[in-house]
Amino acid sequence: MTTHDFYMNIALNHARAMKGQTDPNPLVGCVIVNHNRIVGIGTHLQAGEPHAEIHALRIAGEQARGGTLYVTLEPCSHYGRTGPCAEAIVHAGIEKVVIATLDPNPIVSGNGVAILKNAGIDVEVGICEEKARKMNEVFHTFIVHQRPFITLKTGITMDGKVATHTAHSKWITSKEARRDVHQLRHQHMGILTGINTVLKDNPALTARIPNGRNPLRIVMDSTLKIPLHYQLIQDQQAETWIFTTTNHDEEKRTALEALGIRIIVTANSHMVNPQKVVAYLGEQGISSLLLEAGGAVNAAFLEQQLIDKLILYMAPKLIGGKEAPTFLEGTGAKTMEEAIELTDITIETIGKDIKWTGYPMYKHSSLEQ
Amino acid sequence: MTTHDFYMNIALNHARAMKGQTDPNPLVGCVIVNHNRIVGIGTHLQAGEPHAEIHALRIAGEQARGGTLYVTLEPCSHYGRTGPCAEAIVHAGIEKVVIATLDPNPIVSGNGVAILKNAGIDVEVGICEEKARKMNEVFHTFIVHQRPFITLKTGITMDGKVATHTAHSKWITSKEARRDVHQLRHQHMGILTGINTVLKDNPALTARIPNGRNPLRIVMDSTLKIPLHYQLIQDQQAETWIFTTTNHDEEKRTALEALGIRIIVTANSHMVNPQKVVAYLGEQGISSLLLEAGGAVNAAFLEQQLIDKLILYMAPKLIGGKEAPTFLEGTGAKTMEEAIELTDITIETIGKDIKWTGYPMYKHSSLEQ
Repeated sequence: MTTHDFYMNIALNHARAMKGQTDPNPLVGCVIVNHNRIVGIGTHLQAGEPHAEIHALRIAGEQARGGTLYVTLEPCSHYGRTGPCAEAIVHAGIEKVVIATLDPNPIVSGNGVAILKNAGIDVEVGICEEKARKMNEVFHTFIVHQRPFITLKTGITMDGKVATHTAHSKWITSKEARRDVHQLRHQHMGILTGINTVLKDNPALTARIPNGRNPLRIVMDSTLKIPLHYQLIQDQQAETWIFTTTNHDEEKRTALEALGIRIIVTANSHMVNPQKVVAYLGEQGISSLLLEAGGAVNAAFLEQQLIDKLILYMAPKLIGGKEAPTFLEGTGAKTMEEAIELTDITIETIGKDIKWTGYPMYKHSSLEQ
Repeated sequence: MTTHDFYMNIALNHARAMKGQTDPNPLVGCVIVNHNRIVGIGTHLQAGEPHAEIHALRIAGEQARGGTLYVTLEPCSHYGRTGPCAEAIVHAGIEKVVIATLDPNPIVSGNGVAILKNAGIDVEVGICEEKARKMNEVFHTFIVHQRPFITLKTGITMDGKVATHTAHSKWITSKEARRDVHQLRHQHMGILTGINTVLKDNPALTARIPNGRNPLRIVMDSTLKIPLHYQLIQDQQAETWIFTTTNHDEEKRTALEALGIRIIVTANSHMVNPQKVVAYLGEQGISSLLLEAGGAVNAAFLEQQLIDKLILYMAPKLIGGKEAPTFLEGTGAKTMEEAIELTDITIETIGKDIKWTGYPMYKHSSLEQ
């Protein structure tokens, strides 16, 4: 590990400790080193509060002069509550700045670096870049694609089933894995499912853990089949938005809206288009979406390259059955060349189950949205 | 770890080193301890050669007197090439014998212990019992059930598919995983598949690794649809046996037999019964069987509780498709209570894939065979 890696990792770890409390801002960490000592360290705590660099510079004070500043994200160039960080760095007399990732927003990306360079500061970009990007995967996707970062979550048996042929699925995974799912819900701004899953389970889609924050609940329901007495409509635990098509029942819509449900009509008459759903969610500031749906909805998202991450809870069980559903249906790949590979795999044991995480690598870049 | 565990583990490790070279005998290791020193150690090397205890006693010589002997399997009571080991232990003046597992053969089980106890030796049974049984899982199943130990092997994607909806499957798994499969074939006495897999792939089912030993090739083919020009019929790489029903084509049978293929007719007229197949294989001395078949054949074996072990090579890929096949079809469980749990899970990384191993736990014991 180089010196740069060493200090950047400290900054990354410092930033990660704030996971979940900086939205909609990214996690950012900063370390200032002078004469081989850390003289300042900071992390962004909350939107509206100082950026990581400002905290670190304040701690370092005069010791910042002539030092090297490590920061996990390009210093900002805009005038927020604490002024542009890039200028504060210049004023503090920093000699060298090491940056993990540039600002993902194409409108401002590189501006911070330009300010630093113009002031004669030596700038190095790209140290621990992958780690820094992954730490802010949600933020990066939201800024670059203006849509939520989408995580497909499902519980499966070792033979790939999500239910028996009679649609029985309580329970595939262990209590521990199910608790972990509630943690996931807590970490996401929105949770999306299809009408078939709703009709089958009448789910609440809430984060049932202590201090759990319930995500916005989103249903794709092309004709508004959802029963009015269902939990999502009645329980007031969180907002519920329903995406439907022009083919919906007007009377039902009026009844749902009277109960405080937001109905969004997409132009298609057959089925709700995932592309339209995520574009709308992006406009509404929903930066992270947990997809907890059945095989048809999941496949529709995957076909449009709208799955950024996959979390599988794999239970050491066998269900069997040619008619038992899997979590990815639709038509699927025709040949193995068309199969989608996954990368950055991690595996963790949770109770009796395995939590498997991976990132799809789409062969052709997705259409600009 | 107790003293007993400590020495028994040494005996187990010593025995395991002989994996694959003691068939049809089990792996057995032995350690003799006297005054806190190992004075003798032995392992069974090959059928027809001395048992582990004899090697260890020869090394210990006079130092065996008053010592403790650890052995992974109950000492034999029968007169083989080196006489009953239990008597040799008595004659050597051993004071205490620690045994991991009793002989699985109900006809002789406990006889070795009886000889030792009658001679006044203190005997303890059950130290590291599970490890010892697992080390000889094939031997135990073959002796107790008089049928081969059956391992289902398959390569799947993360969404549980074994092929695309067009039946394309080259390749699901990485080169490294496929090489590991050839190692598996080498370790098994027989390999079994169904006629649909044969018709689709025209496979050789050989162990294509240096010094690979080809298993006996077994096909379930209820009407003898296998084409005469296929590799299994023509390539002379290993014997091929075909199980068929009374519903088969007599002319085809004659042609196949003329080409040296063994045809076994089971009584059923619809499909070949796995129970009958494995009973026949047991009679023929086939102690281990690798099941490399499609979802229908796999399900038929599982329904009859004829899968002892599962090895899944899981590739980080997604195929998708409601019609894409999984490795376990048939009807399957009706409710989650009927799902079959797996135990003793191990996970290993092979190339880009995961090698997942588990053992089905059947809720109701299988019928006596």
